[in-house]
This record gives sequence, structure tokens and C-alpha cells, in this order.
Amino acid sequence: MTGPDAVDLGFARVDVGREARQGLPEVVYGTGKTAAQITSIVRTLLRHNDGPVLATRVAPEVAAAVVSEVPDGTYDPAARLLGWRPAAPTGFTVVVAAAGTADQPVAHEAAAIATAVGLDVTTVTDVGVAGLHRLLAEQDRLRAADTVIVVAGMEGALASAIGGLVACPVVAVPTSTGYGAGLEGITALLAMHASCAAGITVVNIDSGFGAAMAAFRLSRVARRGAL
Amino acid sequence: MTGPDAVDLGFARVDVGREARQGLPEVVYGTGKTAAQITSIVRTLLRHNDGPVLATRVAPEVAAAVVSEVPDGTYDPAARLLGWRPAAPTGFTVVVAAAGTADQPVAHEAAAIATAVGLDVTTVTDVGVAGLHRLLAEQDRLRAADTVIVVAGMEGALASAIGGLVACPVVAVPTSTGYGAGLEGITALLAMHASCAAGITVVNIDSGFGAAMAAFRLSRVARRGAL
Amino acid sequence: MTGPDAVDLGFARVDVGREARQGLPEVVYGTGKTAAQITSIVRTLLRHNDGPVLATRVAPEVAAAVVSEVPDGTYDPAARLLGWRPAAPTGFTVVVAAAGTADQPVAHEAAAIATAVGLDVTTVTDVGVAGLHRLLAEQDRLRAADTVIVVAGMEGALASAIGGLVACPVVAVPTSTGYGAGLEGITALLAMHASCAAGITVVNIDSGFGAAMAAFRLSRVARRGAL
Amino acid sequence: MTGPDAVDLGFARVDVGREARQGLPEVVYGTGKTAAQITSIVRTLLRHNDGPVLATRVAPEVAAAVVSEVPDGTYDPAARLLGWRPAAPTGFTVVVAAAGTADQPVAHEAAAIATAVGLDVTTVTDVGVAGLHRLLAEQDRLRAADTVIVVAGMEGALASAIGGLVACPVVAVPTSTGYGAGLEGITALLAMHASCAAGITVVNIDSGFGAAMAAFRLSRVARRGAL
Amino acid sequence: MTGPDAVDLGFARVDVGREARQGLPEVVYGTGKTAAQITSIVRTLLRHNDGPVLATRVAPEVAAAVVSEVPDGTYDPAARLLGWRPAAPTGFTVVVAAAGTADQPVAHEAAAIATAVGLDVTTVTDVGVAGLHRLLAEQDRLRAADTVIVVAGMEGALASAIGGLVACPVVAVPTSTGYGAGLEGITALLAMHASCAAGITVVNIDSGFGAAMAAFRLSRVARRGAL
Amino acid sequence: MTGPDAVDLGFARVDVGREARQGLPEVVYGTGKTAAQITSIVRTLLRHNDGPVLATRVAPEVAAAVVSEVPDGTYDPAARLLGWRPAAPTGFTVVVAAAGTADQPVAHEAAAIATAVGLDVTTVTDVGVAGLHRLLAEQDRLRAADTVIVVAGMEGALASAIGGLVACPVVAVPTSTGYGAGLEGITALLAMHASCAAGITVVNIDSGFGAAMAAFRLSRVARRGAL
Amino acid sequence: MTGPDAVDLGFARVDVGREARQGLPEVVYGTGKTAAQITSIVRTLLRHNDGPVLATRVAPEVAAAVVSEVPDGTYDPAARLLGWRPAAPTGFTVVVAAAGTADQPVAHEAAAIATAVGLDVTTVTDVGVAGLHRLLAEQDRLRAADTVIVVAGMEGALASAIGGLVACPVVAVPTSTGYGAGLEGITALLAMHASCAAGITVVNIDSGFGAAMAAFRLSRVARRGAL
Amino acid sequence: MTGPDAVDLGFARVDVGREARQGLPEVVYGTGKTAAQITSIVRTLLRHNDGPVLATRVAPEVAAAVVSEVPDGTYDPAARLLGWRPAAPTGFTVVVAAAGTADQPVAHEAAAIATAVGLDVTTVTDVGVAGLHRLLAEQDRLRAADTVIVVAGMEGALASAIGGLVACPVVAVPTSTGYGAGLEGITALLAMHASCAAGITVVNIDSGFGAAMAAFRLSRVARRGAL
Repeated sequence: MTGPDAVDLGFARVDVGREARQGLPEVVYGTGKTAAQITSIVRTLLRHNDGPVLATRVAPEVAAAVVSEVPDGTYDPAARLLGWRPAAPTGFTVVVAAAGTADQPVAHEAAAIATAVGLDVTTVTDVGVAGLHRLLAEQDRLRAADTVIVVAGMEGALASAIGGLVACPVVAVPTSTGYGAGLEGITALLAMHASCAAGITVVNIDSGFGAAMAAFRLSRVARRGAL
Repeated sequence: MTGPDAVDLGFARVDVGREARQGLPEVVYGTGKTAAQITSIVRTLLRHNDGPVLATRVAPEVAAAVVSEVPDGTYDPAARLLGWRPAAPTGFTVVVAAAGTADQPVAHEAAAIATAVGLDVTTVTDVGVAGLHRLLAEQDRLRAADTVIVVAGMEGALASAIGGLVACPVVAVPTSTGYGAGLEGITALLAMHASCAAGITVVNIDSGFGAAMAAFRLSRVARRGAL
Repeated sequence: MTGPDAVDLGFARVDVGREARQGLPEVVYGTGKTAAQITSIVRTLLRHNDGPVLATRVAPEVAAAVVSEVPDGTYDPAARLLGWRPAAPTGFTVVVAAAGTADQPVAHEAAAIATAVGLDVTTVTDVGVAGLHRLLAEQDRLRAADTVIVVAGMEGALASAIGGLVACPVVAVPTSTGYGAGLEGITALLAMHASCAAGITVVNIDSGFGAAMAAFRLSRVARRGAL
Repeated sequence: MTGPDAVDLGFARVDVGREARQGLPEVVYGTGKTAAQITSIVRTLLRHNDGPVLATRVAPEVAAAVVSEVPDGTYDPAARLLGWRPAAPTGFTVVVAAAGTADQPVAHEAAAIATAVGLDVTTVTDVGVAGLHRLLAEQDRLRAADTVIVVAGMEGALASAIGGLVACPVVAVPTSTGYGAGLEGITALLAMHASCAAGITVVNIDSGFGAAMAAFRLSRVARRGAL
Repeated sequence: MTGPDAVDLGFARVDVGREARQGLPEVVYGTGKTAAQITSIVRTLLRHNDGPVLATRVAPEVAAAVVSEVPDGTYDPAARLLGWRPAAPTGFTVVVAAAGTADQPVAHEAAAIATAVGLDVTTVTDVGVAGLHRLLAEQDRLRAADTVIVVAGMEGALASAIGGLVACPVVAVPTSTGYGAGLEGITALLAMHASCAAGITVVNIDSGFGAAMAAFRLSRVARRGAL
Repeated sequence: MTGPDAVDLGFARVDVGREARQGLPEVVYGTGKTAAQITSIVRTLLRHNDGPVLATRVAPEVAAAVVSEVPDGTYDPAARLLGWRPAAPTGFTVVVAAAGTADQPVAHEAAAIATAVGLDVTTVTDVGVAGLHRLLAEQDRLRAADTVIVVAGMEGALASAIGGLVACPVVAVPTSTGYGAGLEGITALLAMHASCAAGITVVNIDSGFGAAMAAFRLSRVARRGAL
Repeated sequence: MTGPDAVDLGFARVDVGREARQGLPEVVYGTGKTAAQITSIVRTLLRHNDGPVLATRVAPEVAAAVVSEVPDGTYDPAARLLGWRPAAPTGFTVVVAAAGTADQPVAHEAAAIATAVGLDVTTVTDVGVAGLHRLLAEQDRLRAADTVIVVAGMEGALASAIGGLVACPVVAVPTSTGYGAGLEGITALLAMHASCAAGITVVNIDSGFGAAMAAFRLSRVARRGAL
Repeated sequence: MTGPDAVDLGFARVDVGREARQGLPEVVYGTGKTAAQITSIVRTLLRHNDGPVLATRVAPEVAAAVVSEVPDGTYDPAARLLGWRPAAPTGFTVVVAAAGTADQPVAHEAAAIATAVGLDVTTVTDVGVAGLHRLLAEQDRLRAADTVIVVAGMEGALASAIGGLVACPVVAVPTSTGYGAGLEGITALLAMHASCAAGITVVNIDSGFGAAMAAFRLSRVARRGAL
């Protein structure tokens, strides 16, 4: 123990005070961690917190090993997400809009994490701007949301289009889909920032996690407003 | 008139339906427009809407010419913002945190626009991460906010630090201050996206306007939550 | 004279055979040339060809000096275009669609050159994707065109949206408008290439000239088809 | 069914109205899709449309599985293209000019797709500018074309050279061949845009598909001209 | 032998005079070298020098082969470091501060090499700026150091924060951890250079070796001061 | 006053505790500040500290105005540095080695600041690697230094060469001299990081200030070693 | 046969006139070609020319297959070069100077090709600028050369140093060795162009082939001078 | 005097031994130097050497001041070159081929410097690859040269085309002409490196000086060959 808020596991110091400070325990980033390491961190978080415990980007075989050690966990292979103690629904509605089929893994990650932390998620796919009729057919659903997460690679234009359609917060996730001039998502990231739609915000490339966390922060201020 | 929502002025088609759709009229981007053009667009917006009308990035001499033509306008030279019919305060609190003195023009733009659309804004300056004690001295104020707008150039590290301190939404604005490896704000933009703090979002370089609009969208969903 | 197709003026060798080979004389690029140089090249082109003679990117004072020397020239200050012997209309219809007001100088250049070489041009402005209703209001006009030239800066999303609406050729011109993440037009150029709309093509940043020339090539093959 | 133009397959929403709107059904992008997914989309497109149905970038083993499920399909392994119901020839002539041997896979994709949608395609190879005599030997064939598709990696200079030789539309495809300073095709893409030849247009890196679709759009306007 | 300071092994010329000139023999860079080559170079260095002999970035199987040939060597698998004749401790204290778990391999390399050349190393992990309380809990240890090596990927903000906390030299090592906008460590490298903390210095991406060597240079000037 | 360590001047919060924490007061970055602002900050720093007070990158006319208000200041126009209460010499020797004449302004800044904070500075110029004999003629002076600051633009190769000659710490400053492929100093910065010389460290482009501050940090640890 | 100078093999058109035009037959670039294709091209070149026939970047197993089909070929595995009918020595002397061990594969390619076309090649290795004494020990050999090929990765500084030592032509080859800030050879390429040494020239990254061909062109003009 | 080869002028150390070592005195780079500085350096070079003395990139007013102080100098305003004691012609022939009119300033610099150091220079302009007939009309002149310097901006394709036409050395100079995707010459530089023509070499952007110096090195080896 190196302080009241951190538990030292040798290979990592787990922040067990984040739930108190920010309303959600630290989320475990699975890339590069062994099943034993994830198991150890997850157990620590479960013991010192009350809310949901999540591990992202976990490969299926690693997930199986962890779940066999830590009871009551569920694994969502499409989102590559491990979770325990999902939060009760809060009624804060999020629409995850994915431009194309190739953007679905990132959209799945965003949706699964947002659901696990208590948001009410709907997913809409294949609404890229090259087919405006499909996008416009979803207008009502988009306008009813408390927040829209836009997941788009290639030129990332969907963020601008939805930014102009809805009045609620828009969180854009550039994806690394596409090839050539898409520059592994850099083009979409830059394009979303250069957008002509006012007030949309952007998270890192392929970061469904970042978008879900941004929506979670929004949901907290909205609930605060409700009191 | 090319449709119910647009008024054609020849040199521009003004979107007079945005207030109804998104809760705020189109904001006029002043760069490259003459005083006569701004005057004409502002008059159109004032006539077809009821809420605040704003023009950003307006040079002092252009502003003086517009104000002399359109009554009841005010000009904020630090923010380079022209405004009419500011919104009544909504009680949604925003802290604008600027890392250094050089970031203040962008912070001013964010604060002035946010205020004009009804948000309750406080500004905190010189809280860069190279002086953590100054940042920590502002913790309580930051934690009490409904939203924090972080304005930082150079390495943009303030966004990560504040993202870890507060639970509310954080909107980061990279600025083009600094020199050399700062790459006119590109480094800060990339760094904010690569941040280790979960759920912070980013807008375009130097876009105090974009951050204020993002906060405005947040305030609307918060108020919706309040009903 | 260094060959049947070139006239040597000392400071330049004028390609007087291009009209025969490509249906249009060499177009003079005005940047960095003196009034005397432009005058000399224009006279050579007028003497050895029968069709339109054009000089692009000519400053007003240079244009005035050239026009005073070479009779029957006209100068379009918005397009910065000098021209002699405009082509008769061919009936090939081009719509130039500009995303925003800031894109108009490039749109003007495209429209003026296209008109001078015999195309039938209509210009549509303020149809950026953040205001889809304004774009959709122009659908019929866009669909009736033989070719659409899309002029857009910032994130360049308009090219994708129009590419999905129309069946005819779409030539996209990225512009250097915007700031920060727009990277002086590089972001729009890359985004247009990464577009999810199939079969749109792209020319250089701010090159209204390139788009007009591409449309001229299209008009020739269309007329060939008509025979 | 989420609208008259889209069929919802769960994992994708197929745009079955594109043939009516743009003269050609949606083309399936095979990368990352399973044989079952491609089979399902292709069946939907065949049922709701009358024209050619195509799937690009399909690996041989995936193609074999799809062809065994959906009768009358053909697979072109060099182009990695699956097709059903190829269009009847329209007489619109396209020359695909590939700079070097390494550019042939992209040239094959362009040629196979263009043929499948009804264009009359000839391919010319090894005509890079370092061997001008080989290029000049093909002048007549190039000048007779309705459109030339130029496929070139490395420095992409072939686009400029052909742009100066022919009067018809030129669509340039940068390829990712070469190494080092070629930057995986970025150098060729930028060089083609900076070309000194007026009116050539560019599509994404390695996008033989994009070039073929651009040529298809051209063929439609040419046929319209013919009426 | 091509000179008094170099021994020619055919495939390499070993600099056996560096120990005399710079206080430490040449360090062998293991990447791309065979076990036989490393064995040969190490033997040469051991024979012509008296101090520590090190080989970095050596894979486990290569290391085993070398150790079986050259007696008294030790291999640190976490640091991928092979060493002979470690230096006696000099009392010069270095704290290696790693922002997150993913930065540990680079931190291990820095710590192991610094220890092998006689520095007194302590490692601190999981002190990223998104959890300032964990960083501040280590303030005393950081301030007591003669030099701090900061190892951080993503946005690299830890360098700025520690630069503001301590008065001693700070050597920052950007790492290639993270994804998307992290650009394989380029973002962290640029951000560390653009830092608002005065007088921090930076070495190459993932170069724990470079940081340890910089600290070794510092320790020599400090000892010189002590005389 | 917002805390014991900061004095709030309205437009800036001055960190008056840095001298106690880091051995040197905050250095004022003059770019973009008015003479009145610099005067006010300097007065505050002089009042709350005992050591040297410095303002960098101050234009001559601004400097004259400040000096007329705050007694005992000196201005070094080559270094664009304003200073009060220079530190007594500490005997810590620094050689500033500038590759070429064009690098001298940055070398001046480094030398003047290092001198003002108590270091014993010698400057060596025109020792670029294209003239190795001039560099080798300075070997003894370089080897006798406690630290070498290398100032070089273009390809920045001097850092590698000196890194191989001396055993002491080497701080490299890339400069924005040169043109074309020098990329305003980015090439030199990257090249210095990719250097084959072990243990050299790098600061921001043109940052003579950063190098001087790094040397100051080194001098403190050396003196600590001396106790 | 598509012309007197080209033989059409279906998959490639072989330029059999290059030997007459440029003094050397086309060199076959082996990457991506099958053994059968290389065999076919080599046979064509051997039949229509008299001089050396070369194929570069050929994998060992492909080389074995070709050699078994086409008699009298030799394969150099270090250079990955296949050759027939090597040229007689011309007495034109080339020194290939490689900065480090990792640069040797590229140096091998340069040396082997240069030898095959008749140049008299000496190779010098481990002469990087961080060890100037090793470089200076080779001064006489370098100064005696007709041309020096410099092969260096990382920061590429060796080109500048040798450019200052010798009066003959210097051809620099940046290599992709190193990591991080070396950017796969881009940094070395840019640094070599920004070099402070006058009159050095640069070829593509890792292109030992390009450097050998440049030296061959030099040898021809030197021999022409000799007549 | 700091050595036999350098004269210390305080603000610069002049390398007066270069003529002996490399056959030509140091060339003065005029950018950023005052007339008094250039005068002083030129006088030193004239006194200690016998051959030509040159100063490049000198503005007309600076040149006039220097010429009035140092007798027998000539100034070429198109090349911005000051020279004394031009070398006698050596008979080594160089053709400078400029792609377009905008490339002429760089071509002038190359031609004027090459002439001043004794080369026999012919200039050919307007031979860009978009007009191959103009280039082919110059074939004989190009093939007769001992060396060709190719000056081209935009896409830089001329280097590849000439590389394929001639057997002699080709030195390519990318220029910063053009706009947008030309990236101030970076695109041309990269494209020239990625060229499909074997054995062409490249110098820095806009560096007519570098190309002339490369040609001078070539002329020396050719003359050596002649002995």
C-alpha cells in the first residue's frame, strides 16, 4: 500500500480511490497484460469498490482464463470487453451511430462500455454521408438522444452531418478503417476537428472506450442537473 | 429565399432555422467578411430569431463599423466577439482553465461566447502542470463545475491532469502557443487525444468557439435532465 | 522558334500547338509573371490560335496593365481571371457547389474558367453538410448537371455527400479555408480521397482552375459521345 | 426493412436503391467480411436490382465459398473481384495505363470493374516516364480513348506525361509500390495533385475501384450527351 | 587492427578505446546481430577493457547462447540486457519514473543499464498525471534524486509535471505505448520538447539505453565536482 | 494572492516559490507580453526572491521601456535577454558549440542565460562536421568542459560528433536555420534523437533557454556531489 | 514486340534497347516477381544485349530456381543480387563507406552492383561520426577514390563529414536502420539533404542499387573525359 | 587564427584551406549576413586563396555595398550571386534543364555558380513532362552533356524523364514552386527520390548551389579520368 488510494501489486499500483473521486473505478486496459495480471487487478478493484469493474481490449483466450478465476464476469467478444457488476440503467440515452460495417468493432466497444456503466444505448449502422437517405431516416432517433456517439473512419464526414442535425452533445470517434489517404485514422481525426459543425468534440482513433467515458461524464452532469 | 430555413443574401445563404433546430442561431465567423457583409447577416439573424446573435473573430475596426449600423451590439476586444441579445444565465457552471498567459486569447473567446449563450463562467489561469501546486489550489473550484474547458498549448498536458481531478465533462482546446516542436498546436492536439485520462474530449486548435459550443450542447442535455 | 509547336520568347517557350492537340490553348499561370511577360505570352497565343486565351491568378493592377495593351480582354476580379475570345456555349452543364462563404474565391475561379471555355455554369453556395436541409434543397439542380464541381475546405465532407446524391462525374476541390487541424487544405484533400462515395475524383488544393479543366475534358468526351 | 431503399440484414443495411439513383448497385467492399456476409449481401442486391453485382478485394478462398452458394458468379483472381450479371458493352472506351509491372494488381482491379460495368477496356503496361519511347509508342491508342486511367506508384510522373498527350479525361491512381521516399503511395498521390498537366484528377491510393467508378460516371454523362 | 583504438573483426570494427575516452566501453546493440557476432564482440571488449561490458536488446535465446560461451555473464530478460563485470555502486542516485504499466519494459532497460554502470537506481511506476495523488505521494523520493529519468508514452505529460517538482536534471524518454494519435511515440517526443517545464531534456523513443547513458554522463560530472 | 507561492497580477499568476523549490525564480517569456506586463512581473519576482530575475525574447524597444522602469537591469540585444541580479560564478564550466554563423543567435541566448545563472561559459563557433579539422582543433576545450551545449541546424550532425568526443553531458539544441529539407528545425531535432552517439539529450528547436536551464540543473547536481 | 526497343512477354515489356541508349541493360527489380518471371526476363535481356544482366532483391530460394534454369549466373546472398556476364573492371574506384554494422546489407547491395558493372570497389565500415578517429583513419583511402558512396541510417551525419573530407563526388544512401525518431530512414534522408557539406547528392532510402547506378553514370562521364 | 586552415573574424571562422583540400574556396551563404560581414569574409578568402570567390543569395542592395568595397566583383541579380575571379572554362559541359518558368530563379543560380567555377553551361527551359514534344526536341543537347542538372517543382517528374533519356549523371533539384499538394517542394523532393529512373541523385529544395557544387565535384573526377 503506497497511499490510501493505491494498492501496490508489484507490477502495477491500482487506483482504488477513483470510484470515490470520479464515480467509476479505474478501467483496466487489457492490451499487453497477462490473464494473471488482469485477474489480480480485477480482484483488487472488486474488493475496494462497489460499482462496475471493466477490462477492455481483452483477447478471447485471456478472457476465458480470467472469467474462470473471477466469478460472475461476462465477456462480450465483439467488444472484447470483460465486465463485473454492471451498473443499473440511469435512463440517460445514447445513440451510437456507425458510418459503415467496418466501423462496427469500435461501435461495439463504445456501446458495451456505455451500457455497462448505466447508459441506455441504441446502435445505428450504415448511415454514412454517401447515403444521406439512410441517415435522414434515423433523424428522429438521433434527435431524441441525450448524446450521440459518431463512429466513422475514411473521411469522417458523418460527424459534421450529425452535428448539424442534433442539438445534443456529439462525441466523434475516428476509426482506422479505410486505406491509403485515410492514414490509419489520422485523416478522419483531423477532418472531425476541422468540421464545419459547431460544438462537436473528438476522442482518440478507434477509442470506443474514450467516447463511452465521455458520455458517462455527460450523464453525471445531466443527473446533477436533475437534482 | 431558397427554402423556409434559409435567407439568400447573394453572397451567403443565412440559416435562420438553426435556432429552432439546435437552440441557438448560426454564429457568424468574421474572418474574411466585410463590415457590410457581417451587418447584413446579423440583421437577418436578429429579424428571424429571438435568441443571442454572435459574430466571432471580428477585428476592432470592422466591429466598430458594424456596431454603428446595428444598435444594441457589444464588442469584446479581448475575445474579438460581437454580440446582441445575450442569453439569460442558466446556472450551468463552466470553468475555463488556461495553462499559461499565452493561452488567454483563446480562453477569452471561450469564456465570452459561453457567457453570451447563458452559461455561468469562471476563468482560472496559469495552472500549467509544471506548477502543480497552482493547479491543486484550484481543485475545489474545478470539482464544483458542471463542465471544465481546458485551454493549453505547448504539450497540452493540463487536459490529462484536470481529467484525472474532476468527474464532470472536460473539453480540451489545444492552442498554437509555443514554438518549434509545438508545431503550431498540432502537438498539443495529438497529445490531448493520446491522453491517459479517460473520457476527455478535444476540439480544434485555438477554437475557443468550439469549446463554448460544446459546453452549450452539454448545458442543454443537463437542463433536459432537470425536467 | 524551337519547333513547330513552340514559340521561344526568351523568358518562356509558348506551346502554341496545344489547341490543336488538346482543344484549348495553354492557360497562362499569372503568379510571379510581370505584366509585360503576360502581355507577350497572350499576344503569341492569340496570334497562333483561334480559341479562348486565359491568364489565371492575375492581380488587379497587373490585369489593368495587360488589358490596356491587348485589346478586347476582360478581367474578372473575383476570379482573378483575364480572358480573350471566350468560347461559345456548348450546352454542357456544370454546377459549382461551394460549402461555405470562405470557399467562394476558389468557386469563382472554377466557374469563370469553365464559362470561358464554353461550359454552362451554375453556382450554388452555403451547402455544407452541417446544414443538410440546404444541401437537399438543391438536389434537383445537382442531379440535372452533367458534372458537379464541389468546392469545400475544412473537413471536405461535401464531396462525399454530393457523390452519394448524383450519378454524374464529381470533381472535388479541397480549399485552404479553416484553421488548425485543417492544415491549409491538406486535411480536406486527404478526406476527399478517403471518401466513402465511389468514383469521385480530386484536384489540387484551391485549384478552381484544375477543376474547370477537368470539366472541360469531360465536356469533350461527352460531345464526342454525341456525334 | 428500415426504408424503401435499405434492407436491414442485421450486420449491415444494404442500399438497394442505389441502382435507381446512380445507375449501379452498391459495390460490396470485401475486406473484413466473411463469406456468409458477402453471400447474404450479394443475394439481397441480386434480388432487388437488375444490373451487375460486384464484390471487390475478395480473397480466393472466400470467393470460392461465395460462388458455391450464389450461382452464376465469376471470380477474377488477379483483380480479386467477384461478379454477377456483367453489363453489356456500352462502347465507351477506357485505356488503363500502368507504369510498371508492380502496378498491375491495381490496374487489373480497375480494368475488371470497368469491364463489368460495361466499359470497353484496353490495358497498356510498362509505360513509365523513364522509358519515354515505350510511352510514345502508345500515343495513338491513348489519344483514341474516351478516358485514360493512369496507374502509377513511385513518383507518379506518368499522370503528368499522359495528361499532356491526350485531350480526354485522365483519372490517376497512385499506387503503394516502391519503397522509402515513396511513403506507401502518399508521394505519388501528392505528386499527381501537384502535376503540371491541367485537368487531370486523382483517386485514392491503390483504388482501381475508385478509378473504374469515376470512368463509369463519365460514361454516363457521355451517353447522356449522345442522346 | 586498423588503428590503436579499433579491433577489426571483419563484420565490425570494435572501438576498444572508448573506455579510455569516455569512461565506458562501447555498448553492443543486439538487434540484428547473431549470437556468434555478439560473442565475438563481447570477448574483444572484455579483453581490451576493464569496466562493464553490456549488450542491449538481446532476445532470450540469443542471450542463452552467448552466456554459454562467455563466462560470468548475466541476462536480465525484462530489460533484455546482457552484462559482464557490473560497475561498483557510485552513490549517484537515479529515480526511474514510469507513467504506466505499459512503459515498464523501457523503464526496465533504463534501470538495468544504469545499475550496471554504477548508478543507484530506484523505480517508481503508475505515476501518470491523470492520477496526480499517486505522483505527489512520491514527491520526496523524486526530490531526493540526483537525476530523474521519466518514462512516458501517450501524451508524455509526466515529464512536464516532474520537471516542475524537482530541481535536479530530468531526462525524458518518450515511449511508443498507446495507439492512434500517439503516433508510435512521436506525439510524446514532440510534447516533451514543447514542455512548459524549463530545462528538461529528451532522448529517442523507447530509448531506456539513451537515458541511462545520459545519466551516466551526469554522474561523471557530478563526481568530478566532488573532487 | 491565491496561495503562498503565487502572486496574482490579474493578467498572470506569478510563481514566487520556484526559487525555493528549484533554485531559480520563474523566467519570464517575453514574446507577446507588453512592457507594462513584463515590468509588473519582474518587480514581483525581484520583491519575493533573492536570485537572478530574467526575461527572454524581449524586443529592444520593449526592453528599453522595462529598463527605464526597473533599475539595475541589463539588456543583451544579441541574446534578446533582460536580466537583474546575475548570479555569482559557480565554476561550473559550459562550452556552447555552434555549428555555423546562422546558429549564433540561439547560441547567444544559451550563453547569456547560462552566464546569468552562474555558469562559466565559453563559446565556440563554426565547428560544423563538414569541416572536421576546425572541430578537432577544439577538442581539448570541449573535453575540459563540465557540460557541452551543441547548437546546430540543418542536419544537426554536430551533436553526434561531439557526443563521441567528450565524456561529459551533451545538451543538443536543434535550430531552425537552413531551408527546404531542414523543415524549420524538425529535421535537426529528429536527427539529434536518432544520433548514433550514446547519451546525448535534446531540447526544443531554437531553445537556447532550454539548454541553459538544463545546464543549470546539471550544475546543481554537480555541486551537490561536491559536498 | 511493340517496338524495336521492347520485347513483350505478356506480364512485362522488356526494354532491350537500354544498353544501347544508356550503356547498361535494364536491371530487374526482383521484389514481387516469381522465379519464372525473372527467368523469362533475364533470358530476354541476355539474348538481346551483350553486357551484364542483373536482378536485385531476389530471395535465396527464388535465386536458386532461376540459377538452375539460366546457366552461368551467380548469386550474392548478402547483396541479394543475381548476375550474369559481369563487366570487366574499368579502373574507376569507388569507396562504399558504411556508418555502422546495421547498414551493411545496403552497403553490400551497392558494392556488389557497382562491381558487377565494372567499378573497382572498396568497402569501409563502422566509421560513424560518433567515432571520428575511426573515420579519420580512413581519410587517405576516401580521398583517393573517384567516388564515395556513403551508407548511413539514424541521423545520417556521415554524409556531411565525408563531404567535407573529400573533393570527389559523394552519393549518400540513407538507410532505415535505427528506431523511433529515425522514422524508417526519412530522418536520415532529410538530414542528408539539409547537410552543411556542399555538393553531396542523395538517393532513395536503402537504395544501394540507386547509388551504384549513380556511380556507374559518373564512371561513364569520367571515361568520356579520358578519351 | 585558430589553426592553419581557419581565420577567425570574430563573428565567423573562415575556412581558408578548403581550396587546397577540395579545389574550391568556401562559398559564402549570404542570407542573414550584413554587407560588412560579407565584405570581410570575401576579403579574407581572396587574400588566402587563388581561385574563384563566391557569395550566394545576396540581395541587390547588399551586393551593391559589397561591390563598392571589394574591387573587381560582379553581381548577377537573377542568380543573386556575387563573384570574384571566375574560373577559366574547363570544357566540362552541363545542361541545366528547367521544367517551367517558375523554376528559372533556381536554374539561374545553378547555371551562374557552375559557370563561375569553370563549367560550360547551357540552359534549357519549359521542358516539363506535360509537353513531351518540347522535351524530346532537346534530346540531342541533353545527350551531349557531361552532366544534366534538372530543376523542377510541382511533381518533379522531369527528373525521371531525363534520367531515362541520358546516360550521363543527372542531378535533380526540387523547387518550391507550385502550391497546395506541392508542399513547398517536399513533394518534388520525395518524388525525385522515388523515381523509376535508375541512378539519378537529388539535392536540397531550391538548391541551385548544391547542384552546381555536385557538378563541380563530377567535373573534377572527369578531369582526373582524363589524365
